[in-house]
Amino acid sequence: MTRSVHKLSRQASELYQSVQTHICAALQTMDGGARFRSDEWKRTDGKGGPGGGGLTRILSGGKVFEKAGVNFSSVHGFMAKEFAAKLGVSQTEDIPFFATGVSLVIHPFSPMVPTTHANWRYLELGDKAWFGGGSDLTPYYLFEEDAVHFHTVLKKNCDKYNPSYYPKFKKGCDEYFYLPHRKETRGIGGIFYDYLGRDEKVDLDETLAFSKDLGFDFTEQYLPIVDRRKALPFTEQEKNFQLMRRGRYVEFNLLYDRGTHFGLQTGGRVESILMSLPAVVHWEYCPVIPAGSREAKLLNVLTQPREWV
Amino acid sequence: MTRSVHKLSRQASELYQSVQTHICAALQTMDGGARFRSDEWKRTDGKGGPGGGGLTRILSGGKVFEKAGVNFSSVHGFMAKEFAAKLGVSQTEDIPFFATGVSLVIHPFSPMVPTTHANWRYLELGDKAWFGGGSDLTPYYLFEEDAVHFHTVLKKNCDKYNPSYYPKFKKGCDEYFYLPHRKETRGIGGIFYDYLGRDEKVDLDETLAFSKDLGFDFTEQYLPIVDRRKALPFTEQEKNFQLMRRGRYVEFNLLYDRGTHFGLQTGGRVESILMSLPAVVHWEYCPVIPAGSREAKLLNVLTQPREWV
Repeated sequence: MTRSVHKLSRQASELYQSVQTHICAALQTMDGGARFRSDEWKRTDGKGGPGGGGLTRILSGGKVFEKAGVNFSSVHGFMAKEFAAKLGVSQTEDIPFFATGVSLVIHPFSPMVPTTHANWRYLELGDKAWFGGGSDLTPYYLFEEDAVHFHTVLKKNCDKYNPSYYPKFKKGCDEYFYLPHRKETRGIGGIFYDYLGRDEKVDLDETLAFSKDLGFDFTEQYLPIVDRRKALPFTEQEKNFQLMRRGRYVEFNLLYDRGTHFGLQTGGRVESILMSLPAVVHWEYCPVIPAGSREAKLLNVLTQPREWV
Repeated sequence: MTRSVHKLSRQASELYQSVQTHICAALQTMDGGARFRSDEWKRTDGKGGPGGGGLTRILSGGKVFEKAGVNFSSVHGFMAKEFAAKLGVSQTEDIPFFATGVSLVIHPFSPMVPTTHANWRYLELGDKAWFGGGSDLTPYYLFEEDAVHFHTVLKKNCDKYNPSYYPKFKKGCDEYFYLPHRKETRGIGGIFYDYLGRDEKVDLDETLAFSKDLGFDFTEQYLPIVDRRKALPFTEQEKNFQLMRRGRYVEFNLLYDRGTHFGLQTGGRVESILMSLPAVVHWEYCPVIPAGSREAKLLNVLTQPREWV
């Protein structure tokens, strides 16, 4: 699946494939009901040649997870110079690129279990190469210890590589997952980083190892939270609040998410890109959130991002 | 509510208010269950002065209509020169504007009754003034006579003013309500026009009358269709198809609709703008549509727009 001459492209591609396998196995065990289906897809490089492809894995209608999608892809081809410019690489003609990564979104059925999203990727564009990624948590009912746990695992892995990473990437996450029209963040954050290695001098092998730690520790970061909350009872009203909040998730992904726009505009596989959207979503006109309620407490945190660790 | 020196701004504003009243009354009678709630809102002109406002009217959980929103607004202020440039008016500084219109989206409960959207508006920007608008139909199960009826009423009103209007505006509608990532139109079309009077020599009084005919005839254009289909039985599978197709509606509105983006970016009232989103929406990964089914027949029409009259 690789075109690049860089040793790293093959290593990254293999890493992300194994991260996908690892995460899907753990999610399936946690769910204990439905199993993942797998769809392999291929693409052309834009000039008629082979352009790599991917493996989309979806679990639907599980006991715990209503919809969980975990995509792996390893693609190459030629990027329009207009797009390359948006990624900070200026050239006078279309540029060869290579990209590989894992992207996942997990929508649990229970409103007591948070939704999560993660992505880790490696890109080569012309003579530049870099890593990007991150993960974030979107609770419907906030348990502070869950937010602390999620961030603690992230900070541990960041600190191992560079003490400046966690504060910088945590801030990047709060800034990226923000809905200006709602004046809210999408959730309680996590980390978000991009262009790691493009301009600054970082060791790309070490950055691959960072990506590996984050990918393999994702299950440790998220599944203990699922395990603690999956059997909690909830009311119909709480379920409705989740369905309404999922509307905000859709608003973010369709209005603002760069990855979604980039994928759709460059002719990516639509069903793999939009697997991020929840199965069932409500939009209610002017929903009323009573002051002091658990719902209002969540909204407070979304309007004023906190330091969790 | 008007700042403009143009006589037309007051006339247009009054017209659209009466169109809103007319349509809401007819929808409420057709529904026979729920009633419209009304929310009046005000805004500032961006420099601290009064900037007009609007009246948002929403009917939720009716017998026929699950969610129907009919917005009236009449606003004025100063438009950033970057935005004005997008509307084809170039100036070196922020420009005074006046805008008034009605915008509606009706989502019936039954998948046998089509969703519809309409908008008619009048804009003044600097020394330019123009009308825009249109209406379109989004069926889930296609009854060809409904599409013919909807377009026949539109063509009648277009032909009254200019024989070139209907073919031009019908094509404009098919082009505007198109989802490139799905390679589908949003529905079976209608008409869509903009900048009527901005550059060409058209009689603005006559164009106001065109807007009036379209606005007041909207009930004749849509409600007979509702009446014919509202009592038809439907299966759970047909309901699910509607919920999934509503996802396409959301995708269009959030990914592509210029009005939605413009409203959100210029600090419009979020709940009034996003009242266009259906109450309940499903996203399913890779839904299967059997060849030759009624669902497949709809998709055929959406991939190859037809001439209905």
